[in-house]
Amino acid sequence: MNFNKHLQGVKTYEAGKPIELVVREFGIKPEDIVKLASNENPFGCSPKVSLGVAKIVEKMALYPDDSMYQLKERLAARFSIKEEELIIGAGSDQIIEFAIHAKANAKSKILMNSVTFAMYEIYAKHVGAEIIRTKSREHDLEDFYALYVEHKPEIIFICTPNNPTGDAIDSDALMAFLDKIDSDTLVVVDGAYMEYTTFKSEAKSVSPKALIHGFDNVLYLGTFSKAYGLGGMRVGYGLANATIIKELYKLRPPFNITTLTLEAATLALEDVDFVNDCIAINFEQMQRYEAFARDENIEMIESYTNFVTLCLNDEQNSSKLADALLKKGMIVRDLSGYGLNAIRVTVGTPTQNDRFFELTSALL
Amino acid sequence: MNFNKHLQGVKTYEAGKPIELVVREFGIKPEDIVKLASNENPFGCSPKVSLGVAKIVEKMALYPDDSMYQLKERLAARFSIKEEELIIGAGSDQIIEFAIHAKANAKSKILMNSVTFAMYEIYAKHVGAEIIRTKSREHDLEDFYALYVEHKPEIIFICTPNNPTGDAIDSDALMAFLDKIDSDTLVVVDGAYMEYTTFKSEAKSVSPKALIHGFDNVLYLGTFSKAYGLGGMRVGYGLANATIIKELYKLRPPFNITTLTLEAATLALEDVDFVNDCIAINFEQMQRYEAFARDENIEMIESYTNFVTLCLNDEQNSSKLADALLKKGMIVRDLSGYGLNAIRVTVGTPTQNDRFFELTSALL
Repeated sequence: MNFNKHLQGVKTYEAGKPIELVVREFGIKPEDIVKLASNENPFGCSPKVSLGVAKIVEKMALYPDDSMYQLKERLAARFSIKEEELIIGAGSDQIIEFAIHAKANAKSKILMNSVTFAMYEIYAKHVGAEIIRTKSREHDLEDFYALYVEHKPEIIFICTPNNPTGDAIDSDALMAFLDKIDSDTLVVVDGAYMEYTTFKSEAKSVSPKALIHGFDNVLYLGTFSKAYGLGGMRVGYGLANATIIKELYKLRPPFNITTLTLEAATLALEDVDFVNDCIAINFEQMQRYEAFARDENIEMIESYTNFVTLCLNDEQNSSKLADALLKKGMIVRDLSGYGLNAIRVTVGTPTQNDRFFELTSALL
Repeated sequence: MNFNKHLQGVKTYEAGKPIELVVREFGIKPEDIVKLASNENPFGCSPKVSLGVAKIVEKMALYPDDSMYQLKERLAARFSIKEEELIIGAGSDQIIEFAIHAKANAKSKILMNSVTFAMYEIYAKHVGAEIIRTKSREHDLEDFYALYVEHKPEIIFICTPNNPTGDAIDSDALMAFLDKIDSDTLVVVDGAYMEYTTFKSEAKSVSPKALIHGFDNVLYLGTFSKAYGLGGMRVGYGLANATIIKELYKLRPPFNITTLTLEAATLALEDVDFVNDCIAINFEQMQRYEAFARDENIEMIESYTNFVTLCLNDEQNSSKLADALLKKGMIVRDLSGYGLNAIRVTVGTPTQNDRFFELTSALL
């Protein structure tokens, strides 16, 4: 059977290995496995959320309120924006998909950073768009601008803080860059880890409201998967002016998040203390990774997220290290697929981090 | 901002009104509202499923096992097929989307029944494909074949039993039809309500295994939203030969179902008795709808599903009836948008059905 030609080159996303797979493949007991591969919140979600969801499990048969009335109301209040300026997705991933399907096609160009979140490219290939990439590992906005002028892309993806590297761009520099982009180019600013950045650095903190009210062509992405501890529930959001949101809505499948997800996200927004506490511990623990990198004489990219990227020295090999750790039950992300001799490690609980330092020291 | 031109005509799916909305709009107490609009299982899901899901709510932070190892193993065993012959979606809706994106584009034609599930058209319009429809309300396979010969569509959708009408085609007739379709045309057989049909009629029961092993170009769709009582959890599946499945996988976003959904679906497959009991009660209760239609002198389409379609007489108006019922807290689906002067009613619990008969009798 023949299929659409542009799908020939599409690769699927390689997810962090789940605990269940390591149990099956290596025969390690689940309790001996530590997963620091997918930047989940190591403290889970707020207990108020899990209690609330457990209470409504008997509603699993019922389709969710597809208007997402309550969640949208609370999210709009959180960002001081209107409900017409937001859309909920099955993870912010799904908003990336909507944006690409709304704006791009097989004749389009899409500009993104040299090293960045893999789903931009994967969804771009679904519509057969051409991908243009900058040169440097960090977001170099001058390079972005030069390529923008040269290629006139339909969409530009800015990922700040960037995944899988953890670095972030200055908010002022981003605003100055956006000023130079014409209004028919959609700029997606992916702030999946922005809660962490805002905690650490005022200069790098991006205000979603200022972004979308300042620029009619900007789509800001956020998620409940990271700081809110709901990675398994698949829920994120897109903020933009009402014209863009209306267009994205055309591509939204009905009931795109589950009944339990809707409850979880709504409750999660109420427990601000839980999120702040988790972020505070994250950066305390991150100092231990900084010390570890110094002690081991390897480079750690300064991180504004809940993960760290450790760049190995030439005589070391990230794939081999990740494999060796995996056999000991420690799951981290090898970044060789991104062209980096590096591993990405989620900042875990103190005990999980102890285990990482112990195992990795012995292997380096 | 400019968007892809073919999205200009896209309408969004109109979901059955959720209970929360009726509470807000009409000030009716939630306990006084009966929702028979979305063909959910009125008995919910198996208690084994809700207990099992409640037990793992603390795992909401963790992304699901994206290989869906256990669920795929059990589903493959259920249908006596290989795991390479199946793909899991966020509802069978998502598999419809994959199929259209894999096979169709703005130059394609897609053939479907005159009255059928709305999402075929909506997803077809996302890629700009042309929609060809048969003439009659029931699936007329001769008309389908004539249009197939005339238009050579990339995809044919067969919905059996059909939604929103509830009628089903004979399995032998379907097989004979498929024999005449060339192998490069993808035929999607949507069996979202097939568990009900199989219970009621051997002649109309379609074997997914026979379909996909008999025809290399057939994609069979099933769901956990109806008989399994997991409408709120968004999970369905597509079965086809491994070549088609491999192509659909290219379009699957990672983590397309939630961690709790994965657990719910896996557990749901174990409790066959629950599903069978619900289906038995469904058809007992459906006899009451048949009697009601006779008494009220209106036509009820013979149904092989968990809903009934009541076709009103000329002097009656389905929109007015549905509106009047809504104001009394009874949510049903008006089918005027499908060109029918009819309402679609989910067969509910005995108490819910009592309430429907009482309210509707007073209004007809």
